[in-house]
Amino acid sequence: MSKRPTRQSSSQTPKKAKNDMDKDQTCINAIRCLSADMPSAANSGHPGAPMGCAPLAYLLWTKFMSYDPQDPSWLNRDRFVLSNGHACALQYAMLHLTGYDLSMEDLKNFRQIGSKTPGHPERDDTPGIEVTTGPLGQGVANAVGLAMAEKHMAATFNTSDFPDLIDNTVYVIMGDGCHQEGVSSEACSLAGHLKLGNLIVLYDDNSITIDGDTSLSFTEDVPKRFESYGWETITVDGLDSDITDLEAAIEKAKLSKDKPTLISCKTTIGFGSGIQGTHGVHGAPLKPDDLKQVKEKFGFNGDDKFVVPSDALAVFREAGAKGAAAHAEWKGRFEQYKIAEPAKAVELARRLSGKLPEDWRKCLPTWTSEDPALASRQTSEKVLNAIAEALPELVGGSADLTPSNLTQLKCSSDFQHGSYEGRYFRFGVREHGMAAICNGLAAYGGLVPFGATFFNFIQYMLPSVRLSALSHLRVLYIMTHDSIGLGEDGPTHQPINALALCRSMPNCLAIRPCDGNETAGAYAVAMENGHRPSVLVFSRQGLPQQDGSTVDKVFKGAYTLVNCEKPKVILVASGSEVPLCVDAAKLVGEGARVVSMPCMDLFEEQSAEYKSTVFPEGVPVLAVEALSGFGWDRYSHAQHCMKTFGASGPLKKLFVHFGFTPENISDKANGLVKFYEGKPVPSLVNRFE
Amino acid sequence: MSKRPTRQSSSQTPKKAKNDMDKDQTCINAIRCLSADMPSAANSGHPGAPMGCAPLAYLLWTKFMSYDPQDPSWLNRDRFVLSNGHACALQYAMLHLTGYDLSMEDLKNFRQIGSKTPGHPERDDTPGIEVTTGPLGQGVANAVGLAMAEKHMAATFNTSDFPDLIDNTVYVIMGDGCHQEGVSSEACSLAGHLKLGNLIVLYDDNSITIDGDTSLSFTEDVPKRFESYGWETITVDGLDSDITDLEAAIEKAKLSKDKPTLISCKTTIGFGSGIQGTHGVHGAPLKPDDLKQVKEKFGFNGDDKFVVPSDALAVFREAGAKGAAAHAEWKGRFEQYKIAEPAKAVELARRLSGKLPEDWRKCLPTWTSEDPALASRQTSEKVLNAIAEALPELVGGSADLTPSNLTQLKCSSDFQHGSYEGRYFRFGVREHGMAAICNGLAAYGGLVPFGATFFNFIQYMLPSVRLSALSHLRVLYIMTHDSIGLGEDGPTHQPINALALCRSMPNCLAIRPCDGNETAGAYAVAMENGHRPSVLVFSRQGLPQQDGSTVDKVFKGAYTLVNCEKPKVILVASGSEVPLCVDAAKLVGEGARVVSMPCMDLFEEQSAEYKSTVFPEGVPVLAVEALSGFGWDRYSHAQHCMKTFGASGPLKKLFVHFGFTPENISDKANGLVKFYEGKPVPSLVNRFE
Repeated sequence: MSKRPTRQSSSQTPKKAKNDMDKDQTCINAIRCLSADMPSAANSGHPGAPMGCAPLAYLLWTKFMSYDPQDPSWLNRDRFVLSNGHACALQYAMLHLTGYDLSMEDLKNFRQIGSKTPGHPERDDTPGIEVTTGPLGQGVANAVGLAMAEKHMAATFNTSDFPDLIDNTVYVIMGDGCHQEGVSSEACSLAGHLKLGNLIVLYDDNSITIDGDTSLSFTEDVPKRFESYGWETITVDGLDSDITDLEAAIEKAKLSKDKPTLISCKTTIGFGSGIQGTHGVHGAPLKPDDLKQVKEKFGFNGDDKFVVPSDALAVFREAGAKGAAAHAEWKGRFEQYKIAEPAKAVELARRLSGKLPEDWRKCLPTWTSEDPALASRQTSEKVLNAIAEALPELVGGSADLTPSNLTQLKCSSDFQHGSYEGRYFRFGVREHGMAAICNGLAAYGGLVPFGATFFNFIQYMLPSVRLSALSHLRVLYIMTHDSIGLGEDGPTHQPINALALCRSMPNCLAIRPCDGNETAGAYAVAMENGHRPSVLVFSRQGLPQQDGSTVDKVFKGAYTLVNCEKPKVILVASGSEVPLCVDAAKLVGEGARVVSMPCMDLFEEQSAEYKSTVFPEGVPVLAVEALSGFGWDRYSHAQHCMKTFGASGPLKKLFVHFGFTPENISDKANGLVKFYEGKPVPSLVNRFE
Repeated sequence: MSKRPTRQSSSQTPKKAKNDMDKDQTCINAIRCLSADMPSAANSGHPGAPMGCAPLAYLLWTKFMSYDPQDPSWLNRDRFVLSNGHACALQYAMLHLTGYDLSMEDLKNFRQIGSKTPGHPERDDTPGIEVTTGPLGQGVANAVGLAMAEKHMAATFNTSDFPDLIDNTVYVIMGDGCHQEGVSSEACSLAGHLKLGNLIVLYDDNSITIDGDTSLSFTEDVPKRFESYGWETITVDGLDSDITDLEAAIEKAKLSKDKPTLISCKTTIGFGSGIQGTHGVHGAPLKPDDLKQVKEKFGFNGDDKFVVPSDALAVFREAGAKGAAAHAEWKGRFEQYKIAEPAKAVELARRLSGKLPEDWRKCLPTWTSEDPALASRQTSEKVLNAIAEALPELVGGSADLTPSNLTQLKCSSDFQHGSYEGRYFRFGVREHGMAAICNGLAAYGGLVPFGATFFNFIQYMLPSVRLSALSHLRVLYIMTHDSIGLGEDGPTHQPINALALCRSMPNCLAIRPCDGNETAGAYAVAMENGHRPSVLVFSRQGLPQQDGSTVDKVFKGAYTLVNCEKPKVILVASGSEVPLCVDAAKLVGEGARVVSMPCMDLFEEQSAEYKSTVFPEGVPVLAVEALSGFGWDRYSHAQHCMKTFGASGPLKKLFVHFGFTPENISDKANGLVKFYEGKPVPSLVNRFE
């Protein structure tokens, strides 16, 4: 059962002088008013959670967290994640109050285009925002990644003389909604398994959801659930007007070194509002007279807007200054570290910069057409391990499909409690948690994370992949078993629609290589695109090594693999359908070109000139992919793709069953040529934009 | 803590005679051998879990479940769900042994194209398969839906004289993998909240995952977690060779009327194999000599394949016959019910047939262009409620966004413990669980379920939406806040890529109506497409009522909304961009046609002739959609769509910011006309297939 601090235990904390308590409350109420002003100014947004969570934020920012408002990128800062991202007015208020580069003007521009204060917190838009939140459950799962990153970086760079060069805590505020999302269950279960004592979660337990009271749908015993995961739990009551118990609870949580801690904080949503404690205060600005009475109730001027009492502001700025001093002290230590551990210091700086060594590509293996056929998951295994040896920032694992995804890192060991230096993560069957954790790992700095599963199951983790893309995080998604070619596992596992959905996502590269060299190219693209995620899509079945594939060509997105003097038809494909097209082209005979298109997104970014060399005017193009053809009209005049789900059977029979044979493809190619005889062939490149 | 039956408690169950125990073990071992024969014949598949779970299946099929192998659709059968679907050899074995229409020949065709025994169980392929499983965590969540359906149907159709016309139990076997998936956490939390005493889950607790031992990643206290959800839990040891305790546990679970029960069954994966208890036995056929020694160890002929001892077969067939007798008895009761409750009986039969009343469309509201603008989420509210009044099989709810999705059913009440007759479900912030539960509700029969959330969050539940499509289930996904038009909530919530990903999914209709009549049409399409799910996509912002929109036209997928004598350019759009195009067309002046395309999938199914009337040869087409343009090349020559994620700001400013103004669209349309002057315009209809 959860441990509620009894009267006795809380009275052991020396009670504060009334003066201090009054000052605390003034500061907390100032946060509440400032947070409520923002939605009112925007006529949009969520005042309820910020007003309820103000005591939590106050304590974290003024008494517990170490941060430097002048340098939000300081490596050893504590990380804060607002998992209930709709409460971002609270976070913006705290960043402003403690002295980050976020002005009162910025707060007044809440939820306006181009402002530093968008409707949900975004990592790149606002100094001090660690991760983009809003989609519920993501933030706390990111926080598990941040905590894992801290453990790993500490195990990697700290030494006996510098035991706490990297030593920070990850703090989270989350709400009921985050608790109900499966992704948070997945990540928090893993956090308990990994004994992440550096993770402290404050649960805003206000009993209100959008539909009404949590009793409508959410009556589980949350602390008990977290105890089942191996967490410490503490419950704090009466928080709206007395923070003493919460302060004690956080102190206690900091002492829990081998378990993450969940502190359930009983709060009142919209505390101070006339409709506090109801769902009416959740997602709409307070009415003007309500906002006025809130301010007056708290002893402020009811007509003031975006005004912070100077004594309160002083408290916040002092907290920010304390953090700056801590940073300065740390910098001194780091100077000593540089002297004592020059190699490690240089490596740490490089890794934090996100830059790869100049000659890093030398590590990539290459293949010739003489080499035997290999599944691209096998060439992936070789490339991944080669990179892992060369680049220690590469860390990751599989959602319990290691022997299928072939992602084991041979140069390292498992990341577990007691071996946090290990670079291989055992995510368990938790795809969504894995992806959200990868976002946290990438956001921490100094790491390039990967997560692996069957390609079809990218659908389990799509919200997190989308957040990788939206927040410009370099995450590698290693997806094997990429088409009907996976065979007998059947349509439940065949990712008919998965490539289309990756291709339709902005700022995300979906790459499906056709052989070993393209596999190496896919990884090179992924590693060198520091500001977007890559989805690397690999086959289960063997693929021959092509003549003419190279790492560099993958960077173009598509290229002519098999040329001919005067192409009359072009076969374009990705992955396992490239060798199929090579065979089909032979059957077509003279005039069949084969284009390998491992990455539609990258090709889209090429010049019209280059595109025209690949798809010259007047030549009809047939796209071949053992997946949904949705989207292929852009680069083909006809498609042989999947129009239905797949089927269960041996892969060779499936390819015949669905017409993926050289004979059928060459017939179609010839048919396409005939179809366009005497007709203009639409240009695929010269288009009106 | 979990309650392990002590020696004392199990000894209270009268111990069986040795003879009976031997017979049990013969039957169980026969299941093990038959299940292991299938992967060996296919040279593909999973023998480990079936061999480990054979005692569970044996008990369920011979002692507990009520079913009629001759009529797998009997309403009052107990439902069985194999959540660890990779263990399907077990399920196929049980269906064959108990007398379903699944021959030994079918078992020999395991994992072959077109067989009734695909690599994972599929609802439509095999008699006796309730739901398609394989993607982990889905099955147990479907089972929650099946249990909710039973509670609701019982509350609706049972009477004081017929208190148990509908009275069945849902049994599940699930593994570690299912427990780790967030979707199962979501659904099981809700099952506890709803006090679904008709749900009994057998957890195959074999401590093995694909990566190795569960100690690598999964060390939570599962029973404790389920207790936190409000479940009963029981743990049973020693199951490999003695089923007495499990039998007692299931008996006990059946007595738990107000709580679902989780029975943790300690089993040995691949029991009998030389590599039992290791992950080596999980996902590959047994080696021939291992399979031989298994059979000999169990006292069978080591060389026999697909052979079942006659005494064992007799036991299974007897169990099947017992079910048939129970069905006959129930039929008798139903005849009496028909007499006593003729109206209810007729309605029940209609609902089970899946057919709607002939004149059902009469309930649909209509709008004229004189009517005021309404957000399509508002017209959806009206249509949904009109249908709900007319069609009592419509049930559903929102993932805690009722006031935003506008899905409250005014004619009914909440489905809660004590009011299972309620048709409105409070799913909580559990999108994925919601969708998986909807699949279970639809699979039960007699219900048409809907689930609602913000469109962007369809990405949280995509694996379940995909299973709706793959298993031909009529589920309505009501998705509001459909584009950048949602405004200030910003890019975390703006579903840039969501429509493309729905359109790329086979057997799934994505429909985005532009006004009230199209909204009614969208619902009509969804209700009348009994064998596929529909994703209904609605705006947050107001949309004017168009002149010329009708319910019928939506069935075509796209149609000419604004015509002109000689079109020189066509603007095609869906949803909120249709009125924008209507305004833009006015600016273009003469010769601009507007096509409304609420559903690309339906249009794709129309004849080339019809398509040509909409997109006549020689007329260039500009697609306009405030979402990713991916896929639009199929029905347009140019696009004005989103190429990036959106932004946070007031919707009107966002539309201007991203160029969605009549002026910009008309400029583009004119530019497109100019671009094609003197050039052939590619046909959008007459294509090479």
